[in-house]
Amino acid sequence: MRLIIDTDTAGDDCFSILVAAAQPDVTIEAVTICNGNIVFEQQIENALKTLEVAGLGGKVPVYPGCPKPLLREHVNAAYVFGADGMSNAGFPRTRQRPEKKHAVDAIIETVLANPGEITIIAQAPLTNLAVAATMEPRIAKAVKHLWIMGGTDNGVGNVTPAAEYNFYVDPEAAAMVFNAGFDISLVTWTLSLSSSLMTEGDLAEVAAMGTAKSDFFTTVNESQVQFSRDHYGHAGTVHPDALTSACALVPGVVTETAECLVQIELDSLLTRAYSSVSSPRVPKQEIADPSLG
Amino acid sequence: MRLIIDTDTAGDDCFSILVAAAQPDVTIEAVTICNGNIVFEQQIENALKTLEVAGLGGKVPVYPGCPKPLLREHVNAAYVFGADGMSNAGFPRTRQRPEKKHAVDAIIETVLANPGEITIIAQAPLTNLAVAATMEPRIAKAVKHLWIMGGTDNGVGNVTPAAEYNFYVDPEAAAMVFNAGFDISLVTWTLSLSSSLMTEGDLAEVAAMGTAKSDFFTTVNESQVQFSRDHYGHAGTVHPDALTSACALVPGVVTETAECLVQIELDSLLTRAYSSVSSPRVPKQEIADPSLG
Amino acid sequence: MRLIIDTDTAGDDCFSILVAAAQPDVTIEAVTICNGNIVFEQQIENALKTLEVAGLGGKVPVYPGCPKPLLREHVNAAYVFGADGMSNAGFPRTRQRPEKKHAVDAIIETVLANPGEITIIAQAPLTNLAVAATMEPRIAKAVKHLWIMGGTDNGVGNVTPAAEYNFYVDPEAAAMVFNAGFDISLVTWTLSLSSSLMTEGDLAEVAAMGTAKSDFFTTVNESQVQFSRDHYGHAGTVHPDALTSACALVPGVVTETAECLVQIELDSLLTRAYSSVSSPRVPKQEIADPSLG
Amino acid sequence: MRLIIDTDTAGDDCFSILVAAAQPDVTIEAVTICNGNIVFEQQIENALKTLEVAGLGGKVPVYPGCPKPLLREHVNAAYVFGADGMSNAGFPRTRQRPEKKHAVDAIIETVLANPGEITIIAQAPLTNLAVAATMEPRIAKAVKHLWIMGGTDNGVGNVTPAAEYNFYVDPEAAAMVFNAGFDISLVTWTLSLSSSLMTEGDLAEVAAMGTAKSDFFTTVNESQVQFSRDHYGHAGTVHPDALTSACALVPGVVTETAECLVQIELDSLLTRAYSSVSSPRVPKQEIADPSLG
Ligand SMILES: [Ca+2]
Ligand SMILES: [Ca+2]
Ligand SMILES: [Ca+2]
Ligand SMILES: [Ca+2]
Repeated sequence: MRLIIDTDTAGDDCFSILVAAAQPDVTIEAVTICNGNIVFEQQIENALKTLEVAGLGGKVPVYPGCPKPLLREHVNAAYVFGADGMSNAGFPRTRQRPEKKHAVDAIIETVLANPGEITIIAQAPLTNLAVAATMEPRIAKAVKHLWIMGGTDNGVGNVTPAAEYNFYVDPEAAAMVFNAGFDISLVTWTLSLSSSLMTEGDLAEVAAMGTAKSDFFTTVNESQVQFSRDHYGHAGTVHPDALTSACALVPGVVTETAECLVQIELDSLLTRAYSSVSSPRVPKQEIADPSLG
Repeated sequence: MRLIIDTDTAGDDCFSILVAAAQPDVTIEAVTICNGNIVFEQQIENALKTLEVAGLGGKVPVYPGCPKPLLREHVNAAYVFGADGMSNAGFPRTRQRPEKKHAVDAIIETVLANPGEITIIAQAPLTNLAVAATMEPRIAKAVKHLWIMGGTDNGVGNVTPAAEYNFYVDPEAAAMVFNAGFDISLVTWTLSLSSSLMTEGDLAEVAAMGTAKSDFFTTVNESQVQFSRDHYGHAGTVHPDALTSACALVPGVVTETAECLVQIELDSLLTRAYSSVSSPRVPKQEIADPSLG
Repeated sequence: MRLIIDTDTAGDDCFSILVAAAQPDVTIEAVTICNGNIVFEQQIENALKTLEVAGLGGKVPVYPGCPKPLLREHVNAAYVFGADGMSNAGFPRTRQRPEKKHAVDAIIETVLANPGEITIIAQAPLTNLAVAATMEPRIAKAVKHLWIMGGTDNGVGNVTPAAEYNFYVDPEAAAMVFNAGFDISLVTWTLSLSSSLMTEGDLAEVAAMGTAKSDFFTTVNESQVQFSRDHYGHAGTVHPDALTSACALVPGVVTETAECLVQIELDSLLTRAYSSVSSPRVPKQEIADPSLG
Repeated sequence: MRLIIDTDTAGDDCFSILVAAAQPDVTIEAVTICNGNIVFEQQIENALKTLEVAGLGGKVPVYPGCPKPLLREHVNAAYVFGADGMSNAGFPRTRQRPEKKHAVDAIIETVLANPGEITIIAQAPLTNLAVAATMEPRIAKAVKHLWIMGGTDNGVGNVTPAAEYNFYVDPEAAAMVFNAGFDISLVTWTLSLSSSLMTEGDLAEVAAMGTAKSDFFTTVNESQVQFSRDHYGHAGTVHPDALTSACALVPGVVTETAECLVQIELDSLLTRAYSSVSSPRVPKQEIADPSLG
């Protein structure tokens, strides 16, 4: 499988790249950086560092993308991941440097040059993909499959009661991507709460491995462990981006799917970026309210 | 306890009235009718019938209220409860007739004449209470306590993915009531899914009692049993209004509460009437986004 | 003609009442007070004072109505009319006192008791009429005609660039009244700018009359003269409420009308209460945009 | 002056290019095509044809840009300009062909390579500029000046009562451009109604010139003459794009300006794309409403 990972590299974004790099039949064609968790320039460094840890230093180009959301003030998540998004690990700068080409141009060119070949994992706000699909709408059908980490299943969010971070940061971009005609699989925050939790025991098991990659994981995950302790009263951590990579790339991880209509709230501050996901619990709208039909 | 029940009498509204009538220390001062589940005039008849079954025929005045929501097209729920809201039972007309006085005037007068004395159970769209509090804002502090059945805990709704019926029908009224200064306890659709389910076994047990009240229950509940079979694949039914009465009136039913900020979505069609309920899963807004602070 | 005047009595509201009182064939059946320009209680006093000046002291009942808008924080206009709405004139309290009955009940009862007979002039935010039409929808068709001062003709407002004061204070009420089925004539702020201006010369002419009514006018109008001087660089004043009374009651004042669709903006803060008025300058919506059809 | 013209070439867009081409001290560096008036591909042909008529065939590169708005369904204006945007003139295809490079990349590269040198005239929906400023926010300060044709001065629109076409087609793009930090002059539809009208006499005068350019003008303007006859009852036409070029490029055309805050409505369908323009007729918002401050 040929892969582009669009990422706001911090914390779990790194682990997701490690998951992808570990798959024998996956080629990471590019890593593209989108505004998100932390300061934009640092996210580029974090992607380069993670590729180095994964043994891919110098082998996968990293393209900087859109440094800000389309329309909204940027909102960072440094309160979860530390100022550098790596639990303030202070890693030395990598030898590999980012490309000059813009991520949006890289996405368009790679996809159009390889129609039906490229899978994209989008684990950040969706600004880059939204802009790419606006400049060149044909990419939607030329992408093989698009995996998105974002939103909730009509459940409680992680930025406001109504919204999850990736969609909240750039809701217009999310709506544009869902309207663009991509073939999409959505991995929600709701799902990650039930299916991506690493317990204190799991984390200890990883730490005990003592490899370079497990040490990197443990170091980078430290801020999130602390955040869980402070806010949720336990020391486990959730891994929505890594879950998305696992669902996309590791056979057998996905055991059940549903075909849904997803709509993103743009018109209200209170529910900004709420992801309405059609549900069998809800009567068909034309029954409940003919005026919604 | 002195009680006003504001109701769109159909199905579970009836059972809620039965629950209230069965409490030894509760006096139902008035039943007020609000637009909601079914045709307005039929809701009045259903309230009168239920009071008769409860042994309160002629003893509790029934006041017709606002026949339509404030601003929105009415949405009925006859698809759940049958056209008459009683599973088309065809009950004969009661001897007791509704009052001439408007429900809104009755609420204002009763509350202001008995400051700190009257508890209200609101188990319908909130038009009557919103109008009463607009005409006479002092009622908010003069009511002893207001129990509301409506909304969700940031969960899936029953009319749209985002919204529950009572709030969906008149979201402006819901927002007005939450802003008016009442002392409110909210029983949500989300809670009723987990805590008000009567299983097939429970329903059989009630049917086996063979009393006038249990027969009434079984007859009136029939449409909802059918609805559950058709939509959820089981024959149990949920009872949010009766749960609200039980929470309000029966000691020991409520085992846990949380103090929350509730905000109602008014500005968007997609999330119309979404109830944002503050949650410990969500970082304080001033952390997540200073611009929301 | 039998008339109810719904008013937030301050400045020009008073002059509108004087205009109505001066018509030989007009009977003012009631004055109803709605939240608006200034402190609610003072508006009641101003209405009583104006009726006294008009020679109607003790002859027209004054009913206090809804003291606050439906859903929004109240916004006052004391910056235009002075704290007492009468240019701080310090008039002594009138002998006539307000009624106990609520304005909303008075409107419903008067209209239903005299179907097809009562004309209403609404020169304040529309809370009272919106609540009346919610409690008793039949009044819309039972009113003879409803004259409203409010909104703009897609022009610049007087509270925000998009909105006029009466609609801005309670936009939901405005929308409810336009949806309720009344037979409505709208006198907009836009029209009042071109057709209700009293120039410095006009005002001097009134002052020179030296009657009790002209003295009252000159005294009460003083704050608005000052406001015009400060904000518009001239000492003329506009009189939208008096223009409305004149249009409604004085033959020959209206020389041209157009049948329009009026829609009130509720969903956005930026354009809160904008009144969209259909215009021959705009292509039919189904031409411009089939999705709006 | 070095100029980029961003255009949805149809009707008046052509005349605006002619105006720019006729200025002795203006170099048109590029023409960029944005979605708008008519079918995207035809707009490219119209730009090429107009450059040929202006004597610039083969001398100014034409870059195709974003073929669709960011978020909304496209709305065309073929009902004004004819299906080909040239009154169905049937012009033969030009020798010059469009560039392969995307308009967005061309704008970014030209501006960043010539900081402080490039003036942009934007006479179409603002998708291209919004995307360029998202990919590369530094262009906002690197552009010398941005002239925009769009919106109204809180006046009646030409697509809905609230909105003008260019902003209506892509309101999010308009808001993004106004937020991006450009130095902007806005020429509104309201202004063009009073200041860009060519009367029947004016049009006859142009027709009488009998030059290649005047013939082109008369031919292309034919559909708009017909539209005016059908909708406005006269045969004059308005020229907002040409007015914008004239304001930007011809000394002495602009006689008066005002510094304003411009905000674009995004949250509501009724007022979609309304441009709120701060006005001296409106009291400072902090006076009118502290909650808006
Ligand atoms: Ca991420
Ligand atoms: Ca109910
Ligand atoms: Ca008034
Ligand atoms: Ca144009």
